[in-house]
Amino acid sequence: MDTEDPRAIPGGDDLPGLQQWLAEHQPYVIADELARIDAVDAVVAFRLLDKERALAVFEELEPVDQQRILLGLRDHVFRDLVEEMDPDDRARMLGEAPAKVAKRVLAGLSANERRMTAALLGYPEGSVGRVMTPETVNVSPDMSAEVALGVVRSKGADAETVYTLPVLDAGRRLTGVVKLRELLLSPSGHRVAELIDPDVPHAHVTDDAEAAARLMRETNILGLPVVDSEDRLVGLLTIDDAVELIEAADTEDAARQAGAAPWAGHYMSTGVWQLARSRAVWLLLLIVAATLTVNVLQVFEATLAEVTALALFVPLLVGTGGNAGAQAATAAVRAMAVGEVRGSDLVRVVWREGRVGLLLGVMLATVGMVVAALLVDGRIALVVAISLVAICTWATTVGATMPLLAKRLRIDPAVVSAPMVTTLVDATGLIIYFVTAQLVLGL
Amino acid sequence: MDTEDPRAIPGGDDLPGLQQWLAEHQPYVIADELARIDAVDAVVAFRLLDKERALAVFEELEPVDQQRILLGLRDHVFRDLVEEMDPDDRARMLGEAPAKVAKRVLAGLSANERRMTAALLGYPEGSVGRVMTPETVNVSPDMSAEVALGVVRSKGADAETVYTLPVLDAGRRLTGVVKLRELLLSPSGHRVAELIDPDVPHAHVTDDAEAAARLMRETNILGLPVVDSEDRLVGLLTIDDAVELIEAADTEDAARQAGAAPWAGHYMSTGVWQLARSRAVWLLLLIVAATLTVNVLQVFEATLAEVTALALFVPLLVGTGGNAGAQAATAAVRAMAVGEVRGSDLVRVVWREGRVGLLLGVMLATVGMVVAALLVDGRIALVVAISLVAICTWATTVGATMPLLAKRLRIDPAVVSAPMVTTLVDATGLIIYFVTAQLVLGL
Repeated sequence: MDTEDPRAIPGGDDLPGLQQWLAEHQPYVIADELARIDAVDAVVAFRLLDKERALAVFEELEPVDQQRILLGLRDHVFRDLVEEMDPDDRARMLGEAPAKVAKRVLAGLSANERRMTAALLGYPEGSVGRVMTPETVNVSPDMSAEVALGVVRSKGADAETVYTLPVLDAGRRLTGVVKLRELLLSPSGHRVAELIDPDVPHAHVTDDAEAAARLMRETNILGLPVVDSEDRLVGLLTIDDAVELIEAADTEDAARQAGAAPWAGHYMSTGVWQLARSRAVWLLLLIVAATLTVNVLQVFEATLAEVTALALFVPLLVGTGGNAGAQAATAAVRAMAVGEVRGSDLVRVVWREGRVGLLLGVMLATVGMVVAALLVDGRIALVVAISLVAICTWATTVGATMPLLAKRLRIDPAVVSAPMVTTLVDATGLIIYFVTAQLVLGL
Repeated sequence: MDTEDPRAIPGGDDLPGLQQWLAEHQPYVIADELARIDAVDAVVAFRLLDKERALAVFEELEPVDQQRILLGLRDHVFRDLVEEMDPDDRARMLGEAPAKVAKRVLAGLSANERRMTAALLGYPEGSVGRVMTPETVNVSPDMSAEVALGVVRSKGADAETVYTLPVLDAGRRLTGVVKLRELLLSPSGHRVAELIDPDVPHAHVTDDAEAAARLMRETNILGLPVVDSEDRLVGLLTIDDAVELIEAADTEDAARQAGAAPWAGHYMSTGVWQLARSRAVWLLLLIVAATLTVNVLQVFEATLAEVTALALFVPLLVGTGGNAGAQAATAAVRAMAVGEVRGSDLVRVVWREGRVGLLLGVMLATVGMVVAALLVDGRIALVVAISLVAICTWATTVGATMPLLAKRLRIDPAVVSAPMVTTLVDATGLIIYFVTAQLVLGL
């Protein structure tokens, strides 16, 4: 049933086929395939690449995959590769690497490259300092456009980008940014000071990297200057790194939303044990929390024994409550991630989602009542309908509120996963259901 | 309890305060706030902006919010704004606009701008043709670097980007791309042909826009040339548009994963009815599907009546199965979205996830057995433990398989939501539980 994938890399035992495949594919395709196969095969394939292509492929790999490859290389190849990397990519890789890899990498670097990498590694994990490039091309406000272009020509080769040029005063303090485009298109005789974009935002080096990346998305800029506590320029976050940050953050949020810990690395080459571990913690916590539902049912065991038909609707009710709560929680988490909802919106969000939940509850109650009336009887149907309205309103409100409360408590809102809301709503939903049953059926 | 938000915009009744606030904030902050408040207030604030800032703010708004503003403006302001937009931004806004807005917009355009916008609107929705910019600066292979720079200087003002320059042959066919950086840094005397980047990918105009954006992320490029069926250049996808596509696609996937339809627009200004509508369809489908659980329980009603203690563990078991299934489904959907898993990986994914589910099931069974033994008795505990292993393995496998099957059937894998997997696993999980109970307890 498996269709042959035209992109798939040949195995390491077919060296001529492998060599031909490597020659025929672009670096990013090769990087993609190397990430999917096991470490030994990946190293075999990597060694067949000539120096220039090896570097191009290496740059496309994720940090964990770069480590897998590095461990299998001989010293001089290893050193060349690491020396050629951009300082920020190197810091990113080292930040996640085991100590023995990190040591070997730093030992192989020239003094200047080591200094830059170590500086980046000094900033807190998750900060923009870790992911910025320290190699920028800077100009000063009193330069003419021609002189500034000359600076780009002479210093541009080492920098990761030359499209965003920080403008610094005599004290290395950031006064603004000039775009290469403006420099190039300006009529001759203009000074940098006249071309500065006054509205370009900047970040502080300890700011959250994801927030900085989202700010770049929002303002459509290609480079975000990064400054220290004295407003002195220390680097630049480039758009290609920002896109990776956004995609990685969304991948993490997706995992968290389903109640799993995010893991670094390619899905296909991540081990079964590691996948299980990333999911086990939450599942175990949730099953312990779910014993609450057993307790609730024990409290109402007499009611349940008297009207066993009530048991029939338990999965339907807790399932529906869980779904409504998960929808609201996911919407709130995402709206906060992209900056549409802030912690201070709590009251407005509760008021909105409460009404959404009530509307949905009324719709669902209509369906639930018909189903219950057809399958059991009218009085149970009434209990189910009333419970659905109450559970839905409650679940939607709780689901939307929890991420906002988390934010206020300075917890990542994405930790409020759909399964967490579901489990919480399960137990409370059962209480709503059985209390309604006792009231309506007069038990 | 609400903390005062320093960014919040003053109401429309406080005109001086509003004016001062507008003067003090950057365009992207103003755009953010306008999207959060109601349409009338937003238009009032927008009209207070001077022409240049109004345009800057307008460009930062999402298409739906742009429409809200446009509807409240007088004709000449309206025409100026629309004429100044980039053709791709205009097409994006029009693609989602009601007919009366679209007509008014197109009527106000100059012939050239109208022609470009109409051309973009001719491409299928969701295609890269809709979001590319048609205004590119092209060079030819036999130009010298100096001549090519001259072309950038003379034609760059109209183009959305000048950093990626498509290289075209005499027949307007794409032969490669040269980066402005290479042109600027090359030693004098070089020809464009020597500076072409041979490895830069391109897209066809009808290709999926999200896939094109992810390709740009993967290859770290700032511009992706877009060609027609005869390899002739028709436009360029720029990185800032690609970032927006990725973020929007991730927002849509997040909504779908929770079983809600994605909606366009800002969370805080979306109406309660619209939010409810986006979630109602799936909730209604799922509650109908959940009647299956009622049927299953009816089949086992005799067993349930005989051992009422079995009912106590129903929410815990279906909840845990649902959580495990949702984790696996979310991981598979995300891995497919970022291109790590393909339709052809089906068998490998089933084999991996089956083992992950078994591992998780064994862990959970240990906890479940202790809980059940403490709360009820040893024989029920055995039933719960065996069921947990089986349900977990089954749920994880089903959860990971469904998105891949969807892909094979050419359905968007993100449609396989966590609630959908949960509901499916609920009914089958109950069957596993009661059959296990009958076997172990000899009922």
